[in-house]
Amino acid sequence: MPVPTAFARDQWYVAAYSSEVGSETGGEEILARTVCGEPLALYRTPEGEAVALADRCVHRRYPLSEGALEDGRLVCGYHGFTYDRAGACVSVPGQARVPRTARVASYPLAELDGFVWVWIGDPARADVSAVPRAPWLADPEWTVVRGMEPLNARYGLLVDNLLDLSHETFLHGGYIGTPEVAATPITTEADEERGIVRVSRHMDDAECPPFYADSTGLKGRVSRWQDIEYHAPCLYLLHSRIAPVGSVPGADGSDPDAFHTEIAYAITPSTETTTYDFWLVARDFAREDEGVSGFLHEFNRTVVLQDVTALDILEKVTAEEEGRRVQELSVGIDAGGLAARRVLERMIAGSAKPAAAGVPGGPEAVAAR
Amino acid sequence: MPVPTAFARDQWYVAAYSSEVGSETGGEEILARTVCGEPLALYRTPEGEAVALADRCVHRRYPLSEGALEDGRLVCGYHGFTYDRAGACVSVPGQARVPRTARVASYPLAELDGFVWVWIGDPARADVSAVPRAPWLADPEWTVVRGMEPLNARYGLLVDNLLDLSHETFLHGGYIGTPEVAATPITTEADEERGIVRVSRHMDDAECPPFYADSTGLKGRVSRWQDIEYHAPCLYLLHSRIAPVGSVPGADGSDPDAFHTEIAYAITPSTETTTYDFWLVARDFAREDEGVSGFLHEFNRTVVLQDVTALDILEKVTAEEEGRRVQELSVGIDAGGLAARRVLERMIAGSAKPAAAGVPGGPEAVAAR
Amino acid sequence: MPVPTAFARDQWYVAAYSSEVGSETGGEEILARTVCGEPLALYRTPEGEAVALADRCVHRRYPLSEGALEDGRLVCGYHGFTYDRAGACVSVPGQARVPRTARVASYPLAELDGFVWVWIGDPARADVSAVPRAPWLADPEWTVVRGMEPLNARYGLLVDNLLDLSHETFLHGGYIGTPEVAATPITTEADEERGIVRVSRHMDDAECPPFYADSTGLKGRVSRWQDIEYHAPCLYLLHSRIAPVGSVPGADGSDPDAFHTEIAYAITPSTETTTYDFWLVARDFAREDEGVSGFLHEFNRTVVLQDVTALDILEKVTAEEEGRRVQELSVGIDAGGLAARRVLERMIAGSAKPAAAGVPGGPEAVAAR
Repeated sequence: MPVPTAFARDQWYVAAYSSEVGSETGGEEILARTVCGEPLALYRTPEGEAVALADRCVHRRYPLSEGALEDGRLVCGYHGFTYDRAGACVSVPGQARVPRTARVASYPLAELDGFVWVWIGDPARADVSAVPRAPWLADPEWTVVRGMEPLNARYGLLVDNLLDLSHETFLHGGYIGTPEVAATPITTEADEERGIVRVSRHMDDAECPPFYADSTGLKGRVSRWQDIEYHAPCLYLLHSRIAPVGSVPGADGSDPDAFHTEIAYAITPSTETTTYDFWLVARDFAREDEGVSGFLHEFNRTVVLQDVTALDILEKVTAEEEGRRVQELSVGIDAGGLAARRVLERMIAGSAKPAAAGVPGGPEAVAAR
Repeated sequence: MPVPTAFARDQWYVAAYSSEVGSETGGEEILARTVCGEPLALYRTPEGEAVALADRCVHRRYPLSEGALEDGRLVCGYHGFTYDRAGACVSVPGQARVPRTARVASYPLAELDGFVWVWIGDPARADVSAVPRAPWLADPEWTVVRGMEPLNARYGLLVDNLLDLSHETFLHGGYIGTPEVAATPITTEADEERGIVRVSRHMDDAECPPFYADSTGLKGRVSRWQDIEYHAPCLYLLHSRIAPVGSVPGADGSDPDAFHTEIAYAITPSTETTTYDFWLVARDFAREDEGVSGFLHEFNRTVVLQDVTALDILEKVTAEEEGRRVQELSVGIDAGGLAARRVLERMIAGSAKPAAAGVPGGPEAVAAR
Repeated sequence: MPVPTAFARDQWYVAAYSSEVGSETGGEEILARTVCGEPLALYRTPEGEAVALADRCVHRRYPLSEGALEDGRLVCGYHGFTYDRAGACVSVPGQARVPRTARVASYPLAELDGFVWVWIGDPARADVSAVPRAPWLADPEWTVVRGMEPLNARYGLLVDNLLDLSHETFLHGGYIGTPEVAATPITTEADEERGIVRVSRHMDDAECPPFYADSTGLKGRVSRWQDIEYHAPCLYLLHSRIAPVGSVPGADGSDPDAFHTEIAYAITPSTETTTYDFWLVARDFAREDEGVSGFLHEFNRTVVLQDVTALDILEKVTAEEEGRRVQELSVGIDAGGLAARRVLERMIAGSAKPAAAGVPGGPEAVAAR
């Protein structure tokens, strides 16, 4: 059960933050992103609707993201082929007639919780109600800091990384890691049908790492809970609870002495060996405190960059060793990561191949050529 | 009929401007250029003759262009093997006897119109009278500005680009493009036997783009003619005529009210995915005006670099999509480019393979080893 | 008999200078080196013993050289798997039990003459007495300057280079080359059984190049002897003697009028196309003179970098031409280089393959997974 490199199709993926696409004042930037190997041009119509089109002009394959928006239409920057938001070509240079087949794929898209989700796969199977949610990320009761770091590593390495937090002790010591993270056993639970993996680690008497000590003001040892919910393939949620030692939530769910942090990652495969690493930290404490926001942003970004460095190294090792009979040795801490690999392999095996092998954009795009 | 990547052999190619080889004062620089995958060392003898030798020493394959000239002989910079202008080795270190087979290929070469043309293919078939001409480029009645930009793209993408000038409107708007270029239909003509493609676009009432407005001083709308003559594989000529609206050449060919610009490109394949983009602008007006020369040089270089940027992007797309069943959609504006691809494919199919597959330097070089 | 690219296994190779591993004051740096394609983590125990372990954690293949030393044990920087000097894993996170098979290869190692030698191959065949020696490199009677330059070229190109010093005249003219080096014939002798090649060139009346003129103070022409001893695959020794013209060693071996320089190279293949080029210059004259040390260091480094530049170019040529029927043309000066290629080919053919094809670390490492 090695790290997967194939993409699970017929799935929703985060292509961008909503704020990255167009702008509130009608900005006309076009954002290029490649998701699961499919190049996308993302933009916003004058009415504010986000659109994702296949980022290749039907004419000579020039990236549409290099073009410009005119009255909400995307104009190719090479020869001026012009597309509406559904991907239909509405104008070509030098002639009045537009070929009927001139059309690029338009990707099903949903804006939820501050993310732009796109559907990679058969558009007929896209169901917005299946997008996994993280409502606190766009909830005024929570304060959020966030960023995105591109990774020169296959997405499976980031899944591995996030499902096994024992690495915090070694890779992120002095930031979020303490001896107790590596030492405390985990419980793991996989719902293979729904594609969800849960990993919990409850440390009842632990050192408080600087990330939480400095943001909450808690002194001394703490009760620290990490409850992971991985909605494969893309959304990773870490429910983090820090409280004085001995404090537990009330029977009614109230938990006044605790500090709650909702940490989220969107793990979006770009190419087979590159990944978008979207990260967010939402908190229900010190919500107006800009100092705490700045601190958490800087600190979490540093932690993410420590992962980026390590995973980029691991990608090089993995690429070098590809095709060799090299084995891993798994132990107890790997239960979550291995469960995630199984869930992903099942999704990959179950997802239909693109209609024409290797043609980006799926059936629609193919029909157009 | 995709963009070709193979090279048409038994053809003349521009390897350099004459001024790049040696120098008027007997300079001893050796210029390295790779044409159609064949590495060349170009230099000038003390008598002023330009020479192109295969750029690999017979001894240990070290590039001769890294060596030095001594009395008009090329001395390898590694162990001193020394060659005369015919490619024969005349001296080796440590012994008096020179092996009979020690010889590198010497390429047929012609200096015409300011270019150094080399023959890639069977030397026995080289015919200098077949070199396509552009006499105005070295004619004192014309003033020329020129340059060369290396392209990280296959040469076929540059042929495509130059044969379809409708892209001027979108990629070069504000420089040489106006709405009329994309909107005006073209006439196309291919002489497959002689390997010539002609594309004409006559705009009788068009906006005058800055490139011509600022150089000619013409105000208001103009008659603008673009007559392309592509001598495959290497020489592209664009006869450009700008005149007041309504002006036409006289029956005797006189054309006193018009401004003539002869734009030329030499499209020289270097490797399979890199190209030398030689560009020249010759004019019959404001011939002594340094300001106009500076303006046209700067402006045309900017336009060429816009193409370089676009074609380098397109090369990446093409390389990524190689082997996939990706199709283009062609329309009327593509008639010239498609004709050029057909002419090139015919040349490629008809040209002999190198005598030994993959050995640079052809039969002569092979015999030498 | 082309330049070899495969590695001769069951051989000793220089991985580092002793001074590069740990430090005299107990430094805890871990040095990453790749020898013959095998990644190594080199460090020193608190007792001062140098250790070379396979640089890949058994858990998730993270490089151990990215980790840290704790009480002489190597701790993986990702999840904390901890290894003793024999490569046995002694601790894993989250559980008390360490899997029996958790072990990385520990490489046989010898510190001799200032070098850290490691054995690449079957550990059972490692015999320290077979390490070739160069005692003057660590002898207080000699003064040594040295360095290491990484080469982006296959090791065979450096072997070629060093076995044929006629290139000094052309590549290193003005430094160590004079006309006599290329012009004077050599004698060559190969002991294929023991893997030793000897090449001698005695110039009895030669120009003295700046390298020796400036360091010895000798004026005018000299007697210059170059006696090469190549202990394949890794150690190259050049016994260099400079003396006034006419001076010869006495019958008893005494040689008071001569200046002796012992030049050594360790040629260590890293990957198939990269090499570590360790170089040393030991002298028995002007031993306390810092000016001479500085001069020889700077001068020899310049000469090595001239080789690096040339060999990096040649690697590109070789890679481009791979798979083509390109031939070299050898002459008398190549006798030494060709003998070295034969010796290396014989070693390569005779050396066992890694127990599991392509698995770094050999049999031990494999058993461990």
